[in-house]
Amino acid sequence: MRVLVNGREGGALDPADRGLQYGDGLFETIAVQGGSPRFLDWHLERLAEGARRLGLRLPEIALLRAEIGSVCQEPQGVVKLILTRGTGGRGYRPRADAATSRIVSAWPWPDREPRAWTEGVRLGWCRTRLGRNPALAGIKHLNRLEQVLARAEWDDERMDEGLMRDEQDQVISATQANLFARIAGRWVTPALDQCGVSGVMRRAFRSWSGDMDDPVIERALPASDLAAATGLVLTNALIGAWPVREFAGRKLALESSVERFNAWLARQ
Amino acid sequence: MRVLVNGREGGALDPADRGLQYGDGLFETIAVQGGSPRFLDWHLERLAEGARRLGLRLPEIALLRAEIGSVCQEPQGVVKLILTRGTGGRGYRPRADAATSRIVSAWPWPDREPRAWTEGVRLGWCRTRLGRNPALAGIKHLNRLEQVLARAEWDDERMDEGLMRDEQDQVISATQANLFARIAGRWVTPALDQCGVSGVMRRAFRSWSGDMDDPVIERALPASDLAAATGLVLTNALIGAWPVREFAGRKLALESSVERFNAWLARQ
Repeated sequence: MRVLVNGREGGALDPADRGLQYGDGLFETIAVQGGSPRFLDWHLERLAEGARRLGLRLPEIALLRAEIGSVCQEPQGVVKLILTRGTGGRGYRPRADAATSRIVSAWPWPDREPRAWTEGVRLGWCRTRLGRNPALAGIKHLNRLEQVLARAEWDDERMDEGLMRDEQDQVISATQANLFARIAGRWVTPALDQCGVSGVMRRAFRSWSGDMDDPVIERALPASDLAAATGLVLTNALIGAWPVREFAGRKLALESSVERFNAWLARQ
Repeated sequence: MRVLVNGREGGALDPADRGLQYGDGLFETIAVQGGSPRFLDWHLERLAEGARRLGLRLPEIALLRAEIGSVCQEPQGVVKLILTRGTGGRGYRPRADAATSRIVSAWPWPDREPRAWTEGVRLGWCRTRLGRNPALAGIKHLNRLEQVLARAEWDDERMDEGLMRDEQDQVISATQANLFARIAGRWVTPALDQCGVSGVMRRAFRSWSGDMDDPVIERALPASDLAAATGLVLTNALIGAWPVREFAGRKLALESSVERFNAWLARQ
């Protein structure tokens, strides 16, 4: 792993950093394709929105772009950018003048079987729920224990991803991906005003599908509504879109538009 | 700040540590009085319960005690112990064999005005709510953004602490303290099965009050119930117990038992 901590190569983190102490920060996981970070503008827009919501001082965007560029040394890979509220402050109280910490790291591209894209993946329910909190909904903050507990629920080959509901039985997302459900001939994606992360690939899929004259409906999605779904799709920044071939034991047809979306994505 | 990272003095943290990446860990904030960590057994019990709930491998308790002892070099101070799920794992998925990271640090005793104990503090409402999630309720995990946002709501002298409700308007705790309310001549403290942290000083106050033939009732506490409270008390591991002299603009009588509790605490 190549890493820059506040611009310093191979740097280590101060154990007093509030990112560790409280999860007081944000992150972005960015695909690098053809040597360039994909959808970087959208990642930086979400980061800026997160910083605004948390009251975190946003570093100069040009500096972030330069640091991301400098760790991107392979044609294909992953860049993870973490911003935290740095050190200091008494207890939970943040310092108004806190200097934001930047941790920019490069990771190898994850190996996954190509058939996840061509034949689809198996999705099941997670038991772990997502707590509802509008103050934190949608942004990609560092408080991710719910996803960690959900992802720890299975370690076998029964399922490839797990679908999470909130405390009021609304479907929100998979542990590491957003969801689109084909219901009554339309794409529906869960509203993320109570919890969940508004993914960059979710934005890309919505935008693309809208351009294809098939606009996505964003709404609250009760778990019971999935019984009517004829197709499901998972999206995230690294995988693009995966069709779901089996959900909670039920076989699903693969939506042909997913293949077209991934083909479009490969040209970006 | 004196710090041991995995036993190494002055150590720095690997930026790939899951404590930073996801808030995947636990902490304890321990008062040191007379050179000894106070209520250490109870802190370690809560830590063990947290580790069980998160599926985190608990280090040898003797090792934790030794490291806490070795950073305690002043008669009075604060020791903060953080355990994280270490490095590794693919995305949120934890490695089954992850080696737990230990970060043990010593901090100066916080200076606070003595009149907080003798004259009481002012408490107000926070706007930021606590999300409900039984999987994480009660334990002292590293996902603390809700408390950070709540504590960032005021930086003036209008109030000393802020009281937080959950998303269903139940009173849970102050940003850094548990709450006891005197209602109809009995102590009531909020149930913490949906959110909140079950504090060591909360345990001490309940235990002491029970011994005084004044047992504490633990129950769901709707915000509206506080209108009937004749007294309020805040507890945490460092402050012991603070009486509240004013809550949301309403003057409250100081409960005399608080002074007796603090006197008892000073002898521990």
